[in-house]
Parts: sequence; C-alpha cells; structure tokens
Amino acid sequence: MLYQTENPHGGDLYGRAVSLDFSANTNPLGTPPAVMGAVVDAARLLNQYPDPYCRELVAALAAFEGVPESYILCGCGAAELIFSFCAAVKPCRALELAPTFSEYATALEAMGCGVDRYPLSEANGFVLTEAFLPFLDKGPWDAAFLCNPNNPTGQTIPPALLEEILALCHRKGIRLFVDECFLDLTDGGRDLSLKGRLADHPELFLLKAFTKSYGMAGLRLGYCLSGDSDLLRAMGRTVQPWNVSLPAQAAGVAALGETAFLERTRAVIHEERAWLRRELEALGLWVCPSQANYLLIRGREDLWEKLLVRGILARSCANYHGLGPQWLRLAVKRHEENRALIAALTDIGKEG
Amino acid sequence: MLYQTENPHGGDLYGRAVSLDFSANTNPLGTPPAVMGAVVDAARLLNQYPDPYCRELVAALAAFEGVPESYILCGCGAAELIFSFCAAVKPCRALELAPTFSEYATALEAMGCGVDRYPLSEANGFVLTEAFLPFLDKGPWDAAFLCNPNNPTGQTIPPALLEEILALCHRKGIRLFVDECFLDLTDGGRDLSLKGRLADHPELFLLKAFTKSYGMAGLRLGYCLSGDSDLLRAMGRTVQPWNVSLPAQAAGVAALGETAFLERTRAVIHEERAWLRRELEALGLWVCPSQANYLLIRGREDLWEKLLVRGILARSCANYHGLGPQWLRLAVKRHEENRALIAALTDIGKEG
Repeated sequence: MLYQTENPHGGDLYGRAVSLDFSANTNPLGTPPAVMGAVVDAARLLNQYPDPYCRELVAALAAFEGVPESYILCGCGAAELIFSFCAAVKPCRALELAPTFSEYATALEAMGCGVDRYPLSEANGFVLTEAFLPFLDKGPWDAAFLCNPNNPTGQTIPPALLEEILALCHRKGIRLFVDECFLDLTDGGRDLSLKGRLADHPELFLLKAFTKSYGMAGLRLGYCLSGDSDLLRAMGRTVQPWNVSLPAQAAGVAALGETAFLERTRAVIHEERAWLRRELEALGLWVCPSQANYLLIRGREDLWEKLLVRGILARSCANYHGLGPQWLRLAVKRHEENRALIAALTDIGKEG
Repeated sequence: MLYQTENPHGGDLYGRAVSLDFSANTNPLGTPPAVMGAVVDAARLLNQYPDPYCRELVAALAAFEGVPESYILCGCGAAELIFSFCAAVKPCRALELAPTFSEYATALEAMGCGVDRYPLSEANGFVLTEAFLPFLDKGPWDAAFLCNPNNPTGQTIPPALLEEILALCHRKGIRLFVDECFLDLTDGGRDLSLKGRLADHPELFLLKAFTKSYGMAGLRLGYCLSGDSDLLRAMGRTVQPWNVSLPAQAAGVAALGETAFLERTRAVIHEERAWLRRELEALGLWVCPSQANYLLIRGREDLWEKLLVRGILARSCANYHGLGPQWLRLAVKRHEENRALIAALTDIGKEG
C-alpha cells in the first residue's frame, strides 16, 4: 500500500518498462549543463540547511522577472504553491475550467472548498471565449483558476479576453489564479504574462515553475508572483521553513542565466510541434491546436495501452473532467523521439 | 521583504559571516560519500519527475525499520510531515512540552488548533517525569506532542514513563505524536523507539528524519511511521504529488546502507559530548544533561552575539517557550571544532 496522490499524473515511469516518456511536458532538450553542475556542486553542502528565505534565488528572480522581491514566494515545485495558496485563501467556492490541470481541484477540495467547472468545447478546440465572462459574472466564486496555456489543450487565452477577466475579478473581488507554468515554452509566451498587472491588481496571483522550462521536474522548484504581501505571508505560514531544498535553490539561480538555452528550446518546440501535428493528423487523429510544448489528441480507446506495450508512455486524459479514455496528451520532444512515436502510431494503425 | 518562516531556527548561515555552525544539530561527520554520490548521479535525471509514491525508498525503509510498507509515508523533510499530520488530524486542542521544537505549535496554530504547554523544570534538567501523567489525564487534548530526545534539552523520556503515556493516550483516544528525529544520534537510541508498538497502537505516530543522521539537511527528506493507514492516506491528500525530490529519494536509499557510518557517528558524539560538557562546566556554564548530539547551556545574555562576532553561530533559545536569551543550544561537532568553540568561550570569559 503506497500513499500520496490518488490522482495519477504524467511522468510516473516507475515500475514500468518505458523507453520514451511522452507523458511529462518537460523541456525536450533536457536539463541545461549549468543546472546539473549546480546540483553536483550542492552535493558537498548537503549537511547544511537550505536558506529558509531563499534570499539569493529571490533576488535573482526579482531581476529576471522585473518585479520587486516582495512579490515573490518560492515553493517545493509549483504544485506546493497551489496547496499553500488554497490553505491561505481558504475559498468557499472556486471556479476552474474543464478540462484543466487536476491539482487545483485536488488542493481546493483538500481545504473543503467547493469546485465548479466551466466546460470548454471540443467544437472550437477548447479555446476560452467571451462566453466565459457572463458565466464568471453571475457566480458566487471567491477564486477563479485559469491555466495559460491550458493543460492539457495547449491553448492560450486571448489577451483581450484575459484583460476583461482580470477587470471583472478586480470589480467583483474574485481572486484570480493564473497558472503560467508553461508560458516560457509557448509561442510568444513571454508577451502573454500578466506580471505587468500585479502592481495594481492585488487579487491577481501568478504561478511559475522551473520544472518544465529548465528540465528540473525531479528537483522541485516553483515560485509565485503577487502584489498582495499579506497573502504571500499567510502562504509562508502554511508550509515548513525549509521547503525549498539547497540543490533546488542553487539550480534555480543557475537556470535563470540560461536564456539562450530557453530560446533554443522554443525554436525546437515550434518546429517539432508543427511536424508532429501534421503527422498525427495524417494518421487520422484529431489534434487540438496548441501553442505550447504538448498536444492533446483524440484516438481509439486502447491507444494508451498499445503505446505502452511499445515502451511509449503517453498521458492518459481519462481522469480529466470533460475528457475521457480516448484522449491522450503527448509532449513535443526531439525529432528522433517524435519520429519514433509516429512510427509506433503508424504501426498501431496498421494493426487495425 | 522575504516571506516564509517568521520563527528563526538554527542553521541559517545565509548573509552572515559564519566559520563554525553550532546552531544546526546535523551529523558531525557530514554527509556520507554514498549519499553525495547518489545526488551527483541524480543530476543526470532531473528532467524526470520524482516517483510520487517513493516506491523504492519505501521498500528500503520497510526493510530498515522492520515495519510493513503500509506504515510508511515520506515527506519533504520531517518538517513537512508535522504540517501534513496537523492538516489531516485537525486537532482542536493539543499539548506539547515547554521547551520543545517550535514547529509543532507553528503547524498546529496554522490549522487553527489551540496549543497548551506542559512546563518542564530546569531544577531537574528539564527531564519529563511521572507528574506529566495526571496532567495529561485531566486535559481536553486531541493530540499530544513529545520529542524524544527533546529538542533543545537532549533529554530522553524514561522508557517506563513513555509506556505509561502511550497506555493513557490509548485509553483516552489521544493521538500521540512522538518526534524520534534525533534518536539515531542518541546514546542507546535505537532501543528507545516506539516503533514496536505501532501495530497495536493506531493512535501512535512516529516522526523520523534523514536530515540529522545522514547529514542531509539541505536535501529535505523525512518519513513517518503509523499503523493508522487512514491517517497516512489523509496526510497524503494534504500535500502535492511530487513532494519528495528525485535526488532526495535516491540519497535516502543510499543512506540506509550507511550503518557503519552511523555507528562511527554515535561513537564520536558520545565521546565529544562528554568532553564538551566538562569543558563548558569548567567555564562556569550550566549544561543540561543530554543523551543526544547537542547541549543546552545557560550563560550570559550576550553570549550569542559574542560568539557570532567570532564567526561561531549558536542556536539562541530566546524564542523557545520556557527558555530565554541566556539559553543557547550547541551542536556536538568534531573535536577540532569543539576545541575552537571552547577557545572562543574562554576568550569571551576573559573579556569579562
């Protein structure tokens, strides 16, 4: 009997014969050498507690993001910050999209919060539209959770709509949680961040991660940005003092210097996503338009198992609200890996 | 402005000129090479999510502790497990000792729990006595927190008394939380663990850490043992799925093979603690009898600052309930380091 999550995610390779993992949306180029080097160097310092205030990392993040240090709180992966946000805000009712990343609801429900869902439509590729505004306006929500680009669809929220949502939340006093964890790996992503609106929107909360951008999923490092210092202080009280490990802090500082690596990653993703989408559609699969480093597809119900038999792990979307077992999420990886995936799918198609 | 803990602990070297850290009670021999090696090896795998179920580590821990896998839950340091215990149990009123480790109360208060304190007495070296039993018996507590050996005193709980406390908690339905994090580095510590009582005492909860025993404070790895699988499942729901990093899991598996290192550590601590105590007493300081790898002393109020000026960081006990600024906690370190401490204290004594 093993505890922890009862809600399976991508990236759980353990105890499986997996040669290619398309289930975790991490950087296709892996971890930059400077980040690995920082972890190797940190191995000599393990007998030392981590800095409970993440002082060096917070200073580096403030310079990187162009926000005051007081807007930043670090966590043991972005996932921890979802839990501490919910523990500090204690919303009674919250709104999220469907489908979307499942940990918002898991964390909300762990705090006894009711979760309502705004259904996105397959017909328009699950993109968020203006129809969301009257829905949001009429509800009893203390907090609304958006994911930009959305997981698992890869669709970004149109900037003008996002501004209208922000204005509505401001007017109604709704906390607006926007998960920007995949924005660094998204076409034009840096221009889509709401971080410039933090100063005059204390109800706005942005979630950020090192996990995906810098290939650091194993290390656990995330951060959040908010102009509401009372909220960040309250979040800090819901977690232990040393939640961010010493290797993660060192790796984070090293990662922020890797701008060229990130540029190269974005170029690879842009090219490979287009190739992968064409090939998948040629195989008769429905592919959701995506601006991110992953693709949502709809195929036959047994596709997940048939890929696993071939050593390829996809993210089954059976446990996403609004999707089902015929839906899979696939990471955009390097060309030879993407080719191997297409070869396996071609093979499965021939089987009939 | 930096968030996170507002309750300072030992080991916060950051932004200070510290050449010798006596404030963190970690292994005086540092981190075993096998543990450092596991972290260096893990640097190649950082793009991979950690196993959310810690499968290999849990199997290794079950063999090491001689308990079923279903009794084990791992956390991001023992500190995280204090918070998830409190979040899952949601006690209304809890009892702890004074003085003791401050994170129990911090976590309890974060969950809205009232905290009562049983005052230990300086007159008998802060040892827990039979007088605790009628106190515990008459109270309204849902949970009682013990620390064995206690932090910062280093005093263990007499085994017969511990059995009586366990029996009383069993009878009254009080959850008994026993922090055994320092037991591995305590004289005869392995015989003092209550782990043999888990099977027939579902109200018993034991906290364990790798932090101190294996010099892994920077990595964040702890675990707990309980026969109450509903509790462990509920705790798992209060935290994110990937709370234990990939390097920490690998290091934990490597650490469990380091039994000879632990033996050597215990021998060094036993010898050095006796030496340090004699020297401290010869300097006219009051020293609490300790069976652990740290010593609580009482001296002049400015001792902490005077040591810091000399590059030596002690743990000020000013923020411990029941102590004050004239109290310091000192780790037992290697002989040359302990000599440097005594030389500095001698120097301070001469200053007058």
